[in-house]
Amino acid sequence: MRNLHHKLAVARGEHPAELLFKNGRLVNVLSGEIHDTNIAVEDGRIIGLGDYKGRKTIDLRGAYIAPSLIDGHFHVESSQLTAPEFARAVVPHGTGAVVIDPHEYANVLGLDGIRYVLESSKNLPLDFFIMLPSCVPATSLETAGARITADDLGLMIADERVAGIAELMNYPGVYLGMKSELAKIAVGKGKAVDGHAPGLRGKNLNAYALAGVRSDHESTELEEAREKLRLGLHILLREGSTERNLIHLLPLINPHNAGNCSYATDDKLAGDLVKEGHIDHAVRESIRHGLSPITALQIASINTARHYRLHNLGAIAPRYWADFIIFDSLKKFTVRQTWKKGVLVAEDGEYLAKTPAAVPLPRGTMNLRYQVRDLEVKAARGKKMKVIEIVPNQIVTRKIIVTPKIENGRVVPDIGKDVLKLVVVERHRATGNVGVGFVRGFQLKDGALGSTVAHDAHNVVVVGTNDADICRAIQALEQLQGGQVAVRRGRITAELGLPVAGLVSDCPLMEVIERLDALNAEARAMGCKLEAPFMTLSFLSLSPIPELKLTDQGLIDAVKLCKTSLFV
Amino acid sequence: MRNLHHKLAVARGEHPAELLFKNGRLVNVLSGEIHDTNIAVEDGRIIGLGDYKGRKTIDLRGAYIAPSLIDGHFHVESSQLTAPEFARAVVPHGTGAVVIDPHEYANVLGLDGIRYVLESSKNLPLDFFIMLPSCVPATSLETAGARITADDLGLMIADERVAGIAELMNYPGVYLGMKSELAKIAVGKGKAVDGHAPGLRGKNLNAYALAGVRSDHESTELEEAREKLRLGLHILLREGSTERNLIHLLPLINPHNAGNCSYATDDKLAGDLVKEGHIDHAVRESIRHGLSPITALQIASINTARHYRLHNLGAIAPRYWADFIIFDSLKKFTVRQTWKKGVLVAEDGEYLAKTPAAVPLPRGTMNLRYQVRDLEVKAARGKKMKVIEIVPNQIVTRKIIVTPKIENGRVVPDIGKDVLKLVVVERHRATGNVGVGFVRGFQLKDGALGSTVAHDAHNVVVVGTNDADICRAIQALEQLQGGQVAVRRGRITAELGLPVAGLVSDCPLMEVIERLDALNAEARAMGCKLEAPFMTLSFLSLSPIPELKLTDQGLIDAVKLCKTSLFV
Repeated sequence: MRNLHHKLAVARGEHPAELLFKNGRLVNVLSGEIHDTNIAVEDGRIIGLGDYKGRKTIDLRGAYIAPSLIDGHFHVESSQLTAPEFARAVVPHGTGAVVIDPHEYANVLGLDGIRYVLESSKNLPLDFFIMLPSCVPATSLETAGARITADDLGLMIADERVAGIAELMNYPGVYLGMKSELAKIAVGKGKAVDGHAPGLRGKNLNAYALAGVRSDHESTELEEAREKLRLGLHILLREGSTERNLIHLLPLINPHNAGNCSYATDDKLAGDLVKEGHIDHAVRESIRHGLSPITALQIASINTARHYRLHNLGAIAPRYWADFIIFDSLKKFTVRQTWKKGVLVAEDGEYLAKTPAAVPLPRGTMNLRYQVRDLEVKAARGKKMKVIEIVPNQIVTRKIIVTPKIENGRVVPDIGKDVLKLVVVERHRATGNVGVGFVRGFQLKDGALGSTVAHDAHNVVVVGTNDADICRAIQALEQLQGGQVAVRRGRITAELGLPVAGLVSDCPLMEVIERLDALNAEARAMGCKLEAPFMTLSFLSLSPIPELKLTDQGLIDAVKLCKTSLFV
Repeated sequence: MRNLHHKLAVARGEHPAELLFKNGRLVNVLSGEIHDTNIAVEDGRIIGLGDYKGRKTIDLRGAYIAPSLIDGHFHVESSQLTAPEFARAVVPHGTGAVVIDPHEYANVLGLDGIRYVLESSKNLPLDFFIMLPSCVPATSLETAGARITADDLGLMIADERVAGIAELMNYPGVYLGMKSELAKIAVGKGKAVDGHAPGLRGKNLNAYALAGVRSDHESTELEEAREKLRLGLHILLREGSTERNLIHLLPLINPHNAGNCSYATDDKLAGDLVKEGHIDHAVRESIRHGLSPITALQIASINTARHYRLHNLGAIAPRYWADFIIFDSLKKFTVRQTWKKGVLVAEDGEYLAKTPAAVPLPRGTMNLRYQVRDLEVKAARGKKMKVIEIVPNQIVTRKIIVTPKIENGRVVPDIGKDVLKLVVVERHRATGNVGVGFVRGFQLKDGALGSTVAHDAHNVVVVGTNDADICRAIQALEQLQGGQVAVRRGRITAELGLPVAGLVSDCPLMEVIERLDALNAEARAMGCKLEAPFMTLSFLSLSPIPELKLTDQGLIDAVKLCKTSLFV
C-alpha cells in the first residue's frame, strides 16, 4: 500500500486524516448493523472508524453511508457505451465496480477485444474486473471474428484485474466433460468460474457443478435457483433491461444463505441505466419487496466482492478503498453522492469525474464481401417455406410455415402478411457468406433496419421490405464501420455509429441514448410495434436458442442445432 | 480432479455411485436449510445430491448429515500429541480439518519444525492447514531455538497446505508499522493473515486492521469483539482448555454477520479433547445457548473454509470432499459417525482410521550447559526480593515483595511461606544461560516439578523445594530429550517424555492422558493445589504477559518489558 507508514500514523491518530466523514449512519456490511460513526479517509483508503480528526470534514448530518455497489455480471457492450461513458451512466447510481464478461468484444476481436476493455476501463471512478470469455465462438453455426482456446485464456488469467473465467454457456459441453471446456475451467483455478445454465436441473446440474462451475445467473424459476444454491452455485439475481428475475427469486433468500447471492444486470441498455438505474434499482426493488436493507446492501457489495475476490472492495473498514455512497432513506434508497477512492465522483445524478484521454479504437472490423444478387432467393415451385416468427421481448423464436410470395421467380417480402426479408452478411473475414431468410413480427411497411450487433458473432443483420433498402442499410453500416441504421426509400433516416468493434458507440452517453431513441422512433414510424426492434434483430442469429434462426451460414434449426433449408 | 470424466458420468447418472447415503437430513450450509436428500459419493468426493443409485447404499434413517467441523485456530502442540494421535482424539468428535499455527514447534526448531508438522500430518483422516508462525522468537527477553524472518516465511508460503500468516502477536509492532512485521504481512498476500490483539481497541486497532490483519481470536469482551468485527476482522470464537470466550461472545452474532465468525480452540489439552470434545463442543454449547443450529454448523464449517480458502471443504455439494458427520439430534449434537473422503473414520467415539507410518522425529533439542552452582542465589544482606505470584488459571502473574529466607549466605526456598525456587535453563544452543527466581503459588511441600514446555522459547523450567531435586528434574528432562517430570527426594515419581521438540509426546493418545493424569496426581500429592500445575509452570517464562516472569536471561519485568533484578 502506498505510504502505509503515513497512513498507519493517521490511523493511530497522530495526524489528522485528509477527509473526515462525520455524523454518518454507517451500513456496516461486515458486522451487519447500522451504527453511527465517523469515518477517516486518507489517500483513497478508509483509515479508521471512530473518533478521528480531519483536515477537511464532511458533515453527513445523519445520512446513511454504505459501500459502493457492485454488479456481479454484466456485458458492457449491451449498453453500447465505451467504458468511460458507461461509468458516466452508472456512477451516479452508486456503482463502484462491475464484473464484466466482454463476450461480444471477444467474439469480434478475440484477445484484442479483451485487452481493449482492460485498457479503456483504466483510470475511471469505476473499477472494471474482467471475466475471460469462455465461449468464443459461441457455436460453429455462424462465423465469428475470433476463436479463443483455454491456452489463450491462460495468457490473460494472471492479470490482477481478471477475476476468472466467464459464464460457461456451453453447459452441455461442461457436464458431458468436453476436454475444451474442462480445460477452460482448469485455467480459472484459484479465481472465479462463472456458470450459465438456464433451466438446468437434476443430475446434469450436479455434473455441471462437479466440473468446477461456481455461479449461475440464469435462474428464472425459484426452485431452479434453490437447487443451484443447494449445489454450491453462487446465485446472481439478475435484473437487466429484458431479463428481470429479481423479484421472482427474492423468496430464495434466508438469513443463512444471503451471503451466497449477488446482484447482476447481465445486459442493460444505456437508456435504462440512466432512467431506471443500475444495481441501486435492484436494491430498491428488493427493499420494496421486503428484503432487509442490510441484506440488500450486502448482496450489492461485500458478497460480490468476496465471491470474485475483489480485494479491499465492498465494505467500509480500514484498508478498504474509500468507495461509498451517501443516501437519506433506506426505503427510497436514492443515491445522493458516490465517492470513489475518497473523491466525490457523482452528486444528485450528476457525474463529476473527468473523462480520461480516449484509448485508440481497436482495428476496423467491417470486412464484408457480398453482391446484390446474394440477397435474392430463387423460388421453388409449389413449395412452402420456413419463416422465423418473433416472440415479443424474448430471445426464443418460433418456426412457422408460410406460402411464399413470388415475383419474377424470386421469393420477395410479403408486407401485407408481415413476412419480411432477413439478411445476415459475414463481416469479420470477408468470407462472402450471406444468409437469407424471412421473418415475421417486425411489421415494417417500408424500408429496412440494420445492425452490426447480432449475437453472438455480430455479423451484419438486416430486416427489410425490399432489397434496395436492405442493400442501402448494409452499405451504410459499412460506412459507419459498424452501427445501427434505419433506411427508407434509399435514405438513411436514423443511425447510430458503433465503430468500436461494430458493437459500441464512441459518442457520449446522452448522444447514444438520443440516437437510439431516434432509431426506435423511426422503426415505429415504419410500422414496427416491437418495444426494442434492434435488440430483437440482434438475437435473430443466436443459434443456441430455439427454434429457428438465421446466421451468415444460412437458416439454422436452433433445436437440432444444424443448418436447415428454407423450403419445406 | 482425479478421474473427472468418470465422476462426471456418475454425476450424470450413467453409472451407480460408489456410495449412496440415503434418507439423510442434510444440513445444507450453502442454501441455509435442512432438507431431505440422497448424497452420492465417488472416489472421496461428493458427486451429486438427489435421485442417485449406489453400488453400496447407507441408509441414514432420518439422521442428520452435515459437513465435518473445522477448527479455525489451534496450536497442536498444546495437546502434546503428534498429528496422528491428535487426529485420534478429535476425529471421533467430527473434526475434519484444523488450521494450525505451529508456533511452539517453530520456536524450538524453526522452519524444520513447520516442515515436520507438514510431513507428520499427511495421510490422516484430518486435514491440517498451516499458518506460518509470525513471532519467532516471541521476544528478545528469552532465548529461543530459532529466528524466523519474513524472508523465511516467503520460502514456505506457496505450499498449498499453507493457508497464510499466523497470528501477529506483536500487535504494537504491527500498528506502529515495524518493517519486520509489515514484511510478514506482505508475504501473506492472497492468503489469510491472522491477528492476535487481546484488548486492543480504538485507533490502534484501526491501525492494526489497516496494516492488513484480517482476523482475531483474542476477544474476551463482547464490545471488543464487536469493534473488531466492525473493522473487518474475522472473529474466531475461542473455546479452549483455559480460554473460554464462546458463551460470552455469542450475543455478537446476528443473521447478517455470522458469516464472519468461526470457532477455534487455540490451546486444548489431550484429556479435554477426548472428554469434552473439540469443535463439536463449541457447536453444542452454542446451540444450548440459543444459536440456530444451521448458523452454528456454518460457523463450524463453511465460514472457516472460506476465510482460510480451504478449497472444497466445509460444505456438502458436488466437487466438495466427502467429509461429513452423522448425528441424530440437533439439540444434543453428539457426533455418531465421521466420514473423511468417503471413508468411515470414526463411529460412536471409536477411531477407525489406520495410523500411517511414523515420520522420523526432528533432531534432538536438548542442548543444555549448566552447573549445580548456577542454581544458587547469593543473599544480599538486608534486601527484600521480588517474587512471582501465580494467579490461578491465568497467564498473568503478580509481583510481590518478600523477605528472603537465607541459609549459609544463600537465598533458599521458604516452604512454609510457599516461596519456592524457579529455575529456567536455556536448552537450545547450550548458551549456559540459567535464570533463577522465586515463585509463590505452587504450594509444594517437597520435591520439584519440571518441564520443557515453557512459552514461548520452551527452555527448561523447574519449580522446586530444594536444589537437589531441581537438579534431578533437569537431568531427567535431559535424559527424556524433553518432557515433564515430578521428582521427590531424588526419585522420578511421574514423567511424560516429550521427545518431539521437547513439546510433544511420541506416545499414543491414551498413554499421554494417563501420564499427564499421573503427573498432576503426583503434584497434588506434593501439596500443589493448582488445577493444571504444568500449564501454570509453562507460562511463567512468557515475558509479554504481565507482571513478573523468569526466563533463561533472568527475572523479567513483564510490564516494562526489560530485565530486572531479584533484589529491591
